[in-house]
Amino acid sequence: MRNIHIIIEYDGTNYCGWQTQKDRPSIEQKISEAIEIVTKEKSEVIGSGRTDAGVHALGQSANFLTNTSIPIERIPLALNTKLPKDIRVKKAYERDINFHSRHCAKRRVYNYKIINNLTGTALAWNKLYHVRDSLDLDKMKKASQYLIGTHDFTSFCSAQCTSPSKVRTMYDISIEKHDDIIDIYVEGSGFLYNMVRIIAGTLIDVGKGKIDCLKISEILEGRDRSLAGPTAPAHGLYLKKVIY
Amino acid sequence: MRNIHIIIEYDGTNYCGWQTQKDRPSIEQKISEAIEIVTKEKSEVIGSGRTDAGVHALGQSANFLTNTSIPIERIPLALNTKLPKDIRVKKAYERDINFHSRHCAKRRVYNYKIINNLTGTALAWNKLYHVRDSLDLDKMKKASQYLIGTHDFTSFCSAQCTSPSKVRTMYDISIEKHDDIIDIYVEGSGFLYNMVRIIAGTLIDVGKGKIDCLKISEILEGRDRSLAGPTAPAHGLYLKKVIY
Repeated sequence: MRNIHIIIEYDGTNYCGWQTQKDRPSIEQKISEAIEIVTKEKSEVIGSGRTDAGVHALGQSANFLTNTSIPIERIPLALNTKLPKDIRVKKAYERDINFHSRHCAKRRVYNYKIINNLTGTALAWNKLYHVRDSLDLDKMKKASQYLIGTHDFTSFCSAQCTSPSKVRTMYDISIEKHDDIIDIYVEGSGFLYNMVRIIAGTLIDVGKGKIDCLKISEILEGRDRSLAGPTAPAHGLYLKKVIY
Repeated sequence: MRNIHIIIEYDGTNYCGWQTQKDRPSIEQKISEAIEIVTKEKSEVIGSGRTDAGVHALGQSANFLTNTSIPIERIPLALNTKLPKDIRVKKAYERDINFHSRHCAKRRVYNYKIINNLTGTALAWNKLYHVRDSLDLDKMKKASQYLIGTHDFTSFCSAQCTSPSKVRTMYDISIEKHDDIIDIYVEGSGFLYNMVRIIAGTLIDVGKGKIDCLKISEILEGRDRSLAGPTAPAHGLYLKKVIY
């Protein structure tokens, strides 16, 4: 039995998210179907984690067990010919049988992408979150630094989050601007439900001057979702990579 | 009466093209509807030229006559609030009453965008044409130079093209590569039906080694569509700007 680890890029616009649901197609379902056609076996596809409807991935990570004899270097092409164009397998690796894309993940990196100008963008309307108000990048950078470290992130996760512990470690947050595009990168041990989108929404409110950057510590300590900023929309969010 | 000149960016994926048709929405129709809501008048929207279904624009140009008193600097935002997110008015200018976005256009610049790698791109699946085979850029550049000048472009237009004259002037063609992305820029007096897509398809065939770059003159002189390469797909094509 082989354990195949695949790196996947996807445009989340037309999917209900990573996880299979009843009514709309999911990324997991499309990959599962492609694997079945290519390997002629039903395999469980283990994703590194879920992404919500509309959220994109530059480097989602998943693995599956198979008896196929297809050489590893031919796996991406074989799957891509059976996948819709908005899902691409970028790479495939042969892993030890114990490798599990979720349990073995050490860090996850997300990228939240903003276009900050008056008119927005027609060509990337579903790939960048449009913010019209001018944003103070220095304040956003300062605020972000309070989130680094091991904290209880209750204030920064959806009230519907069911994780028993809300403690996570944030290794790094960086914010970069190139022309009209602002990129927020967050690297952490793991993320709670809507956590990156609430961090992005809060940092945007800091940038607008609605939240003082010194308040971030208070918001964390308050352990109350209502203290943080709004949940930024799904279409600006990208799962960039999973580190093992 | 005011004559308003607008510059428009759009994602052509979900439209039948610029021109209004019966069954599917067009860009022209959406802009026309937005103008009617904003100005409370029915105005004819004059586009600089048509784009096909799936073709995008970075800078389409159009004008319309109106009695509205909305200040020129507020026109883009006013229209954008009534337009779908995949169509954005980037700028608006007050023009002389004789300005006509099609008749006054001196040059048009198109950009054909290719992603040249093994797996393609999920995130820009409808924005870049994926070519797997390696392309010889030097040969493509050499071939492109034969198209510059005033020629009969019968070989490079659709057999359905109804223009009485197939003579056009090509001012410049340049080809650039950054990472996996190849950009072909063409600047000409005007373009026949499918002309940029056939030029792109032919240059790609030159890059693959299917057509010798020295053959381009023969193809032009043959005045026969079947001599040139295939019509590259619509989703790689962008109307970049119209020069007056």
